[in-house]
Amino acid sequence: MSLKLYFAPGACSFVPHVLLEMSGTAFEPNMVKLHKGEQNNDDYKAINPRGQVPVLVNKGQVVTQIVAIVLHLDQIFPDAHFLPTEPIARAQALSTLAWMNNTVHPTFTHIFMPQKFSDQPDVQAALKTYNTQVFHGMLGELQSLVLAAAAQGRTWLTGEHFSPLDAYSLTLTRWGTLAGIAPEVHPELWAFVQKVAAVPAVSRVMARERLQLNMSPAA
Amino acid sequence: MSLKLYFAPGACSFVPHVLLEMSGTAFEPNMVKLHKGEQNNDDYKAINPRGQVPVLVNKGQVVTQIVAIVLHLDQIFPDAHFLPTEPIARAQALSTLAWMNNTVHPTFTHIFMPQKFSDQPDVQAALKTYNTQVFHGMLGELQSLVLAAAAQGRTWLTGEHFSPLDAYSLTLTRWGTLAGIAPEVHPELWAFVQKVAAVPAVSRVMARERLQLNMSPAA
Ligand SMILES: N[C@@H](CCC(=O)N[C@@H](CS)C(=O)NCC(=O)O)C(=O)O
Ligand SMILES: N[C@@H](CCC(=O)N[C@@H](CS)C(=O)NCC(=O)O)C(=O)O
Repeated sequence: MSLKLYFAPGACSFVPHVLLEMSGTAFEPNMVKLHKGEQNNDDYKAINPRGQVPVLVNKGQVVTQIVAIVLHLDQIFPDAHFLPTEPIARAQALSTLAWMNNTVHPTFTHIFMPQKFSDQPDVQAALKTYNTQVFHGMLGELQSLVLAAAAQGRTWLTGEHFSPLDAYSLTLTRWGTLAGIAPEVHPELWAFVQKVAAVPAVSRVMARERLQLNMSPAA
Repeated sequence: MSLKLYFAPGACSFVPHVLLEMSGTAFEPNMVKLHKGEQNNDDYKAINPRGQVPVLVNKGQVVTQIVAIVLHLDQIFPDAHFLPTEPIARAQALSTLAWMNNTVHPTFTHIFMPQKFSDQPDVQAALKTYNTQVFHGMLGELQSLVLAAAAQGRTWLTGEHFSPLDAYSLTLTRWGTLAGIAPEVHPELWAFVQKVAAVPAVSRVMARERLQLNMSPAA
């Protein structure tokens, strides 16, 4: 098996990065420095014309988009149980993954890269402020999911197995700290994310990406 | 089998609506009138607290999010071939579906419901204008996918079988006409979408939703 992952430290590529590390397979991690604009180099655009991470390359075949990469990893590593197999549990896990990916994640993009939505500095500033509040509320929703899982006796968000939802929770909560949302305001979410960070494969990826979990000024 | 779909005419719920119709199974279509705010009624929020369509209910179990619903329908109706089964082809189809869902669709939300991103009328107006241009570019990207599929001898975007990507292409192109993007500016996309609309199951859903394909003022 020949697998490569293009990732950026702290970016959403963390989700497939953790799954690959957890799979126990050999893979080639390739760092793309977003702050240096490497995603827009010709070489990288030849791989992903949209100039984004993550990209998975499986035997020379390019797969973009977290949701597609995660489902592909679930298909090629069935023993890792990345997603539930029972149809309704699977659909509900994918529903939460899709929500993280199409709603929570893009809300953060309004804070971190408002230039994707407007070329006017005042509009960009307004987007940052407003969407920081929205993002705050969404982390509250995420905390509710953590509490609901715990109430049902689940170790992780989808059940007994670690899933992409757990890794994504860490990324989104960490992004909140970059947006000035102190993690302690969502204590159960914060405790959960610290538990995620303590999983050996997750710690190894955090070390490779040199990630600090709490980026709050006070931390 | 007991399947219900909550949909709104012309909304993104069109995608699972078409797949259900195509499956040949009996299902209960439930209309939610977004312009009357029915998605925020207590009854509806009890089904989907996020107040959005689509919602699929399978034997009393709620599934939200297009991506999750589509994958669930693919799982329970394997003979419909809604998604490719070969792993890489499947991953690439899901990648395009994810892109439509997390990038193109939310860009339209900035035009149609800018109040989701700002409470300031001038910011909302700026978002509409800017994102109409962005959406225009994305329909161009979608047209490139249509051309690439045709160049590879495919009948539909993913191959010989009709897929959720084909239905989503119709919805996104039709939304473009609502945003003032005349469909003729992307002629190959427009021809493709008219071919999608002519599929019997698609026509039946368009009739049920009372949809006109081209909403341009000139049409
Ligand atoms: N919809 C994409 C989003 C990917 C994305 O947002 N990537 C960001 C990092 S989190 C990126 O590469 N940004 C760099 C840029 O847009 O210039 C997915 O789900 O994979
Ligand atoms: N991420 C959701 C998006 C659903 C969505 O955008 N639904 C829209 C219609 S296209 C809606 O219900 N809007 C009503 C509202 O937000 O008030 C999905 O993929 O299912």
